Amino acid sequence: MAVKLLAPDAMSLFAVAGVELGWAEAGIRKSGRKDLLVMRIADGASVAGVFTQNRFAAAPVLLCRERLAGAHNIRALLVNTGNANAGTGEAGLVAARASCEALAQLLGCDAKQVLPFSTGVIMEALPTDRLVAGLPQAISQLAADQWLQAAHTIMTTDTVPKAMSRQVDIDGSRVTLTGIAKGAGMIRPDMATMLCFIATDAAVAPQLLQALTRRAADQSFNRITIDGDTSTNDSFMVIATGRGPVRIDTNRGILFEAFSAALIEVARALAQAIIRDGEGATKFIEVRVEQATTESEAARVAYAVAHSPLVKTAFFASDPNLGRILAAVGYAGIADLEPARVQMYLDDVYVVRDGGRHPAYLEEDGQRVMKKSEIVICLQLGRGQASTSVWTTDLSHDYVSINADYRS
Amino acid sequence: MAVKLLAPDAMSLFAVAGVELGWAEAGIRKSGRKDLLVMRIADGASVAGVFTQNRFAAAPVLLCRERLAGAHNIRALLVNTGNANAGTGEAGLVAARASCEALAQLLGCDAKQVLPFSTGVIMEALPTDRLVAGLPQAISQLAADQWLQAAHTIMTTDTVPKAMSRQVDIDGSRVTLTGIAKGAGMIRPDMATMLCFIATDAAVAPQLLQALTRRAADQSFNRITIDGDTSTNDSFMVIATGRGPVRIDTNRGILFEAFSAALIEVARALAQAIIRDGEGATKFIEVRVEQATTESEAARVAYAVAHSPLVKTAFFASDPNLGRILAAVGYAGIADLEPARVQMYLDDVYVVRDGGRHPAYLEEDGQRVMKKSEIVICLQLGRGQASTSVWTTDLSHDYVSINADYRS
Repeated sequence: MAVKLLAPDAMSLFAVAGVELGWAEAGIRKSGRKDLLVMRIADGASVAGVFTQNRFAAAPVLLCRERLAGAHNIRALLVNTGNANAGTGEAGLVAARASCEALAQLLGCDAKQVLPFSTGVIMEALPTDRLVAGLPQAISQLAADQWLQAAHTIMTTDTVPKAMSRQVDIDGSRVTLTGIAKGAGMIRPDMATMLCFIATDAAVAPQLLQALTRRAADQSFNRITIDGDTSTNDSFMVIATGRGPVRIDTNRGILFEAFSAALIEVARALAQAIIRDGEGATKFIEVRVEQATTESEAARVAYAVAHSPLVKTAFFASDPNLGRILAAVGYAGIADLEPARVQMYLDDVYVVRDGGRHPAYLEEDGQRVMKKSEIVICLQLGRGQASTSVWTTDLSHDYVSINADYRS
Repeated sequence: MAVKLLAPDAMSLFAVAGVELGWAEAGIRKSGRKDLLVMRIADGASVAGVFTQNRFAAAPVLLCRERLAGAHNIRALLVNTGNANAGTGEAGLVAARASCEALAQLLGCDAKQVLPFSTGVIMEALPTDRLVAGLPQAISQLAADQWLQAAHTIMTTDTVPKAMSRQVDIDGSRVTLTGIAKGAGMIRPDMATMLCFIATDAAVAPQLLQALTRRAADQSFNRITIDGDTSTNDSFMVIATGRGPVRIDTNRGILFEAFSAALIEVARALAQAIIRDGEGATKFIEVRVEQATTESEAARVAYAVAHSPLVKTAFFASDPNLGRILAAVGYAGIADLEPARVQMYLDDVYVVRDGGRHPAYLEEDGQRVMKKSEIVICLQLGRGQASTSVWTTDLSHDYVSINADYRS
């Protein structure tokens, strides 16, 4: 029951020169489902990543950080579902290293050139034997046109595979960006994880790619929330193979900005797809905050609203119980906020004027907007020029059901 | 369906010399229910309060702050349910002032000696006419033995009235403390509010009482959470009439500590009663954090766990999905937390040893604890000596139903 989210069409997903994808049914947790993905990357690509800030970061995240900080010639990504290899201590690191080593041997590269990613149940040992046994099947499938299959392979509680592709012409040359992602909220039956992999055929030096990746994350995956929980395994990776005609050499100029905009567009579409397919989601809500002092202040207010269970249940009920939004603005932690300068709109309906109910506001106008499946809340703080948006969902019975299901 | 919470017995609630309570059915939102409470306070009492930090604080909260900052001879509290008088701007202040003025005239005191409290629907005008019309009935009921009726009067979504009384002998003299409170989570059909009024016959100077009230709040109402939302109207008031034999003159010594302990005990019992009667609560959960660097660090971790919708749904399902707790510890914002030093117990079951699953931990042991209606999660951070506890509930289908109900 995703909110206005269609499965991507395989034909719309452009191959990216220098990237091949292969999948397997390794039976990591359950048999008969795709749960293992190998992405083989051509020699000389740049790879950048942004990872969870959770202090209980999973073993694969620790390994990714270590390997990206060292040499940069990454040759493969190894992704499994069914087990997050988190809360597993030293044994988890051993298992992740062994998995990478097995793939490296099969691909003829060094284990340090393989980055691991895991999602699924936590605090249980990664079944390395089954994972390794599945690798030959995944490698036999490797092909450049397998993005949709790859999107299917990394799904967990997702009800719709998430993939997005764009080709843009920059300065007369065509650049391709294709990505896949998985959500959603926290993974049934267990832990959260957001994973996203975007590849492009542009050539981008590693440090520049890292800056672009961070910037794209801040405009996409760092602007969505379902339940406020941050997973131990969240990872957002960008691969630049350099096999196409476009080369990004500096962090300014038309070329850089055009490429950055395309990357942000793909990342944001995938991030929003995660929200549209959020656990139990019936509404897709944009919380837009304007006239803040800084963008981080705007984000703080937007997140307070987007995280409020009371706001989210009101949206689930299509109840224009808009005082709950004001209350969330009030506890967002802005000590010198002046309520009398705050305006609020629900889509085109002017609800709060100068901190109080607008005299002309009619409940039926609020009700009309609340019944829609896509809604924009706009809050103006009257403090400055900065603005941002956060995208979120409502809180429904299905959210509780999904997350309360016993893991069996 | 409160968790092990019985209605108090009127006989167990001691009168407090210098305080009388009277109620009325004023029809503020609905007819035929008690919705107006007057507490008359004898001349010369001290009154202290701790209020919501929400920047959209309601009109009555703004008036309370103003009046407590001025002269301290408060003679009456005026409490209504059915309307929070919040998000009402200047008109809300006018309405609150008019209500106090009307009560002051009937009681023969100054309007500035009356403190107003409101809870109920927000962003709607307070029906001052109906409130004022109800005052004579409330005044005609004024009596010292009406604490249980007062507890009934301030109920909103509460399913059980909340009142608590203690008599302690301090240095050979008896001191009485009696209080009432209301929760719970956010009030159906609208906004949150936690209100608590505790009276004692001890004599305590206003500044000292303010310090005691703050200290008690930090050990009780500032250590509970249902959904993390902070209301526009939350108020915790302590009245010291000085009509008994005990006098607290300094902020140290046996007398002070004994009185403080009694006040904290009453406040904590009322705070915990709010949690036990939380919206949709089926479990009463203590999140205890030990070995933190500071108490505020311990509270930060405890709140991260207590606020996590994933942790809360797992408890609702009695599912020992304990990785969710570790994940919440990990994103609590302690940048230098060392996972390998973290231990976790669920009641007496040692679940996490040195940051990973304890080798001897059996899922059925976790399951056995999770099925209980009262559970203690104990987290040891291995960083220092500080500790604290936060009390919370699970997140159930009923929570969603209660808060998604349309306000009609």
